[in-house]
Amino acid sequence: MQQKNLEVCLSPALLHLYDIKDSIVVVIDIFRATSSMCYGIANGAEAIIPVASVEACHSYRDTDYLLAAERNGEVVEGFDFGNSPFSYTAEKVSGRTIVLTTTNGTHAINESREAQKVLIGSFLNLSALSTWLKNQPNDVLLLCAGWKNKVNLEDSLFAGALAYQLQNEGYKFDDSAILAADLYHTAQYDLDGFLKKTSHSERLKELKIEADIAFCLQVDLIDAIPVLDGDRLVKLA
Amino acid sequence: MQQKNLEVCLSPALLHLYDIKDSIVVVIDIFRATSSMCYGIANGAEAIIPVASVEACHSYRDTDYLLAAERNGEVVEGFDFGNSPFSYTAEKVSGRTIVLTTTNGTHAINESREAQKVLIGSFLNLSALSTWLKNQPNDVLLLCAGWKNKVNLEDSLFAGALAYQLQNEGYKFDDSAILAADLYHTAQYDLDGFLKKTSHSERLKELKIEADIAFCLQVDLIDAIPVLDGDRLVKLA
Repeated sequence: MQQKNLEVCLSPALLHLYDIKDSIVVVIDIFRATSSMCYGIANGAEAIIPVASVEACHSYRDTDYLLAAERNGEVVEGFDFGNSPFSYTAEKVSGRTIVLTTTNGTHAINESREAQKVLIGSFLNLSALSTWLKNQPNDVLLLCAGWKNKVNLEDSLFAGALAYQLQNEGYKFDDSAILAADLYHTAQYDLDGFLKKTSHSERLKELKIEADIAFCLQVDLIDAIPVLDGDRLVKLA
Repeated sequence: MQQKNLEVCLSPALLHLYDIKDSIVVVIDIFRATSSMCYGIANGAEAIIPVASVEACHSYRDTDYLLAAERNGEVVEGFDFGNSPFSYTAEKVSGRTIVLTTTNGTHAINESREAQKVLIGSFLNLSALSTWLKNQPNDVLLLCAGWKNKVNLEDSLFAGALAYQLQNEGYKFDDSAILAADLYHTAQYDLDGFLKKTSHSERLKELKIEADIAFCLQVDLIDAIPVLDGDRLVKLA
């Protein structure tokens, strides 16, 4: 098997250092954007359109799309919902198209558009992702959305979980991938306890969304993998 | 005790995200710039002047300074030496001023100049640094020089070692500090074995400088801490 590269980019502000044209990029924003995207697509949402700004989201107001906007962990006033996974149940999103803007996740997706393929990752679809990736010939870049370009623990941890699953699959890891996989190795039996240490966990606690956190840490709840097709995320066939 | 912040910046390309005006910044470039700086200052070098470019270094050619230039792991042609710690023995540097430019380390120092204080860290002066820091009232930022702005394992690991020593000293850790400290926790009993996994280790191996690596991983060989004073690094009083 030809050796493939597995790299981890710990912040969108470092993405310019990587050549992603021929790579599959997996975008990671565990609390909560990419978890909710995975859950929504698994629950039959027709598509999710990630947009950069609240204004861009608002411009879809005369369509029958659901509009979702989150900034600093809260639903933006005047919008249907934000990025809580509980807003992405089958009841709410099946057959619908959702336009979504978030603090970090949609930014990271937009920065990745020149990649060969852009996938969306979360603990919810971890094994589905790793199974699919290991059968592809491409290099892989795991892109952590972070928090306003700073490195965060939950996204690094998930990058590590995915790297860990790809450890004996012919990939050459870069230093960030080794670092992330080691982090996951330490934390794997108590993800929730480990993440209680994080800054974002405190922030989410203040927002009273601990249930969202617990939800986003469920491993392999679904099989669906969102993929970017033009300007919209759809279910990978 | 008032709570202080301990943050880790894993790449110079992320430094703009941090407000360092009132912070002590510790610059880290384990293989090999900051290890050699610490060793040189411990061995009686009067000062080390870090400069950004080979040209800037060359402009000191009519002085009695020692000129040191490294690019991509090798001594630049026409210079006295590069950044091997074995070039920074007492015999070679005692009483001398050295002008030094390196691929990553001197760049990180230059980017940190607006900090309240800039210190130089390495495994060689780990405990001296942590002992000194814990008695200061300031926030601390550990700046990893990385490799051409990419995150690397050895600098992250040392940041983790220093964070680990400061764990019960009243600091609030950011996510990167938690991540780095966890990494060190895993690797502490076999730094060399752990770092054999790194990309840079392979690169250094090709350059036949394994002895340099082993040297740079010695913990607490010296007590000296280089500090930036104007445009030169001198021994912290």
